Amino acid sequence: MRTPPHKTIERLSQYRRALLMVHDSDKTHIFSHEIAKIIHITPVQVRRDIMLIGYTGTLRKGYNVKELIDLIGDIIDSDTMIRVCVVGVGNLGRAIINYFSGKRTKLSIVAVFDSNADKVGKKYSGIPCHDIAELDEVIRQEDIKVGIITVPADQAQITADRLVKAGINGILNYAPKSVLVPRDVHLEEYDMITSLEKVAFYVKSD
Amino acid sequence: MRTPPHKTIERLSQYRRALLMVHDSDKTHIFSHEIAKIIHITPVQVRRDIMLIGYTGTLRKGYNVKELIDLIGDIIDSDTMIRVCVVGVGNLGRAIINYFSGKRTKLSIVAVFDSNADKVGKKYSGIPCHDIAELDEVIRQEDIKVGIITVPADQAQITADRLVKAGINGILNYAPKSVLVPRDVHLEEYDMITSLEKVAFYVKSD
Repeated sequence: MRTPPHKTIERLSQYRRALLMVHDSDKTHIFSHEIAKIIHITPVQVRRDIMLIGYTGTLRKGYNVKELIDLIGDIIDSDTMIRVCVVGVGNLGRAIINYFSGKRTKLSIVAVFDSNADKVGKKYSGIPCHDIAELDEVIRQEDIKVGIITVPADQAQITADRLVKAGINGILNYAPKSVLVPRDVHLEEYDMITSLEKVAFYVKSD
Repeated sequence: MRTPPHKTIERLSQYRRALLMVHDSDKTHIFSHEIAKIIHITPVQVRRDIMLIGYTGTLRKGYNVKELIDLIGDIIDSDTMIRVCVVGVGNLGRAIINYFSGKRTKLSIVAVFDSNADKVGKKYSGIPCHDIAELDEVIRQEDIKVGIITVPADQAQITADRLVKAGINGILNYAPKSVLVPRDVHLEEYDMITSLEKVAFYVKSD
């Protein structure tokens, strides 16, 4: 199988999240229209994506939940654990650390960084907080491949630069300012203002 | 002008964010390729969107930053302030409240809700925290139109239901579980796991 498109990867991750919730409720099979309803897309899209990864359900019972979870995992997860760090232990950084703690996933947050001396040396959900001055050293030692940026806007680019220099391959930027990275580093950015302005636009148009 | 497409609204919001940063640095004009570089899209896309809203720059100097900021505001902002609430004052809720506090925007967080008695009655960035039991009453009294959900997964749907019942028109859901809302309520959802799994997928594919 070739690498699925960008958007398909995103949806496969969403399908798995929906399937894991269904699995927890002891449901063994699910139809495409049920998955579609949970994540607000069309059943046709769900069927097309799942066909693309070479899986089929039965007409009568739909997809086997457990099998589909495992298959999606085979495609999108790494064989080995991918090690992640969070730079910036403010409210958002802590929300992210809590969020991942104890989740079944092939991603593991193994280090967090902050410049605040009151935070350095503490543990957050069991994860040690290092001084940002040690970023390069810790990333190499801990074999960290992905960095999550939750620093203030004016620190975003310098943080991205340091992560890249330390050998990171992927960055998820939550700072309220876009960053530039070399082409071989995968970058995802998310800004809360954009989502909220979108909601507000449709609210005022009513 | 007709209502621009969904994705255009999102990009206009991103353009404005980039333009505001540029404006703060005292730059008066900007070219489409400069905007494009900041937010990681093509200059053609930028020119197409800005043409769509009926604005043109000059070949020599590009777009006037201030004019374009104002024009985008005229299109995506409400004439009146849109009042927003946050349900769930955990780390993520607090990150959102801090994030918006003091921002130049036509969106204002005027109330937050939590079920924890230790939080009720306190202020977060100056915004009062109410008991979730008062949600319906406060939303009506304060004329709140948009709700941001940052509660745990198992509380997400019940929170969405309560917001809808109280008369909200738009919901931004950050809980790690999708919710269902009536068709006339605008819903945006964001899950951190999906973004991180996407970054991780491209990292492991290297």
